[in-house]
Amino acid sequence: MAASPLLQEALAAIQAEVDRDFDLLLPVPADARARLIEAMRYAAIGGGKRLRPLLLAATAGLYGVDRSLAVRCGVALEAVHVYSLIHDDLPCMDDDAMRHGKPTTHRAYDEATAVLAGDALQTMAFEILSDPATVGDPFTRAELVQVLATASGAHGMVGGQMMDIVAEGGGFDLPMVTRLQQLKTGALLGAAVEMGAVLGRVPAEGRGHLRLYARDIGLAFQIADDLLDHEGDEELAGKALRKDAGAGKQTFVSLLGPERAREQAQMLVEQAVGHLGQHGVEADLLRDIARYIIARKH
Amino acid sequence: MAASPLLQEALAAIQAEVDRDFDLLLPVPADARARLIEAMRYAAIGGGKRLRPLLLAATAGLYGVDRSLAVRCGVALEAVHVYSLIHDDLPCMDDDAMRHGKPTTHRAYDEATAVLAGDALQTMAFEILSDPATVGDPFTRAELVQVLATASGAHGMVGGQMMDIVAEGGGFDLPMVTRLQQLKTGALLGAAVEMGAVLGRVPAEGRGHLRLYARDIGLAFQIADDLLDHEGDEELAGKALRKDAGAGKQTFVSLLGPERAREQAQMLVEQAVGHLGQHGVEADLLRDIARYIIARKH
Repeated sequence: MAASPLLQEALAAIQAEVDRDFDLLLPVPADARARLIEAMRYAAIGGGKRLRPLLLAATAGLYGVDRSLAVRCGVALEAVHVYSLIHDDLPCMDDDAMRHGKPTTHRAYDEATAVLAGDALQTMAFEILSDPATVGDPFTRAELVQVLATASGAHGMVGGQMMDIVAEGGGFDLPMVTRLQQLKTGALLGAAVEMGAVLGRVPAEGRGHLRLYARDIGLAFQIADDLLDHEGDEELAGKALRKDAGAGKQTFVSLLGPERAREQAQMLVEQAVGHLGQHGVEADLLRDIARYIIARKH
Repeated sequence: MAASPLLQEALAAIQAEVDRDFDLLLPVPADARARLIEAMRYAAIGGGKRLRPLLLAATAGLYGVDRSLAVRCGVALEAVHVYSLIHDDLPCMDDDAMRHGKPTTHRAYDEATAVLAGDALQTMAFEILSDPATVGDPFTRAELVQVLATASGAHGMVGGQMMDIVAEGGGFDLPMVTRLQQLKTGALLGAAVEMGAVLGRVPAEGRGHLRLYARDIGLAFQIADDLLDHEGDEELAGKALRKDAGAGKQTFVSLLGPERAREQAQMLVEQAVGHLGQHGVEADLLRDIARYIIARKH
């Protein structure tokens, strides 16, 4: 199953918008910092599905949030995602040579530049969100920073990356792999939906169904990733696959087997769509995103 | 010249307060993230002069800001400083084995853990500042994030680190070295003073003299660092020295010679003290910090 026409259009739109915003936000200076900004641009522009900004904008769209505001906040979120990929690809981490079909940042530049480009992209995320030019209301600015920081630090994404490294030693069971993935991938997908709700000024107590939706698609996304790693096409993926089995790492697929993993992902997607019951056709994009997450080929 | 009694007391106090706050904020979890948090604690607790938190608290003290609030914000700032040291020490960067008299984080743990611990310490800074439990007023929260993010990213500290790497190729003149150092070290020292003023609710137009003070001590600090690298004691410093000359890097000392560099630092410190003329004895700590910056032996 390919992406629905609605989703195809939304993906093409957000990809262009995110690229344009990164381009605007990262002018190359005429001094020795040029190499840093060029490496940031290399990693940030023109690659990736932009699933996180899409989720943020689609959620914000439920509440009539200004599109350019949602995109700008999506770019902040994507900056965190991109920084994590740069650092994840480093020789001391996954040691990956290819990402999005081109050499990884430390291969195209060098390791030191890649470390700094990742560092500066993380900072950039918080520069954007705390900028009065992004959001006028200071309460919303502070809450966006809080949501993104909580999701991406030691209690979120980076914590999950650490667990992932420890997991290479083996011995992780299904609850531990689930927890690992909820942090490593789920936290940032959850932040996407939460930030959309923050922009929509949905009070915390009104976000429950969105959080459940995000949790379910987060796990489904990771199971789909494990299945793609198990049986996907390296050329389509634009990166090396079948590294998990080589590393002796426990995944949803190694623990459940491919068939049960696929069923589990399918069930999670149906459950995610079910959480959107209170919304009408305006939530069709979020529904299509949920379905696409397990149908994608890369 | 040693630190004044006033400054000695203030240093001892802030060091204990910062250690205590890092300890409170970094409980070790009972799961596979333990290694990450332990590495963050290893790098963050029990080392360093805590000059940045001291500057922040001393500035906030001018305006009667609650001490524990100032310390907490100082801890956020220090988290950024500590993360930058962890990443700076990596084999692909300065490849340093010792820091604060003990093995660097990647030596005590491993490179991957050091990269992640640095990443998570950066995030932690913004988690602290955007937390309603830190500061009640959302405008102040958002402004603190903005000041720190601007000072630490591509247009601040990380930009300066990139310039520093490029500078190893040689050919930097005095204005370029000055610009490099204003970003690499000056930006974060400036953020310390600025954040103190933000907490003190000093409007932007009333911060001019504090910014000038910070700019002058920032440059004096770096000249003093270059002098220490040139003629300091490795044991007192707790790290390897005389690396600049080995790397063929231009510094204030190589460009001006040690005598003129020392005179320049002295002049900057007098100028910095001069900017505090509108304040009375309550600014004596800031004055003593300025004088100590060029008198310190490590």
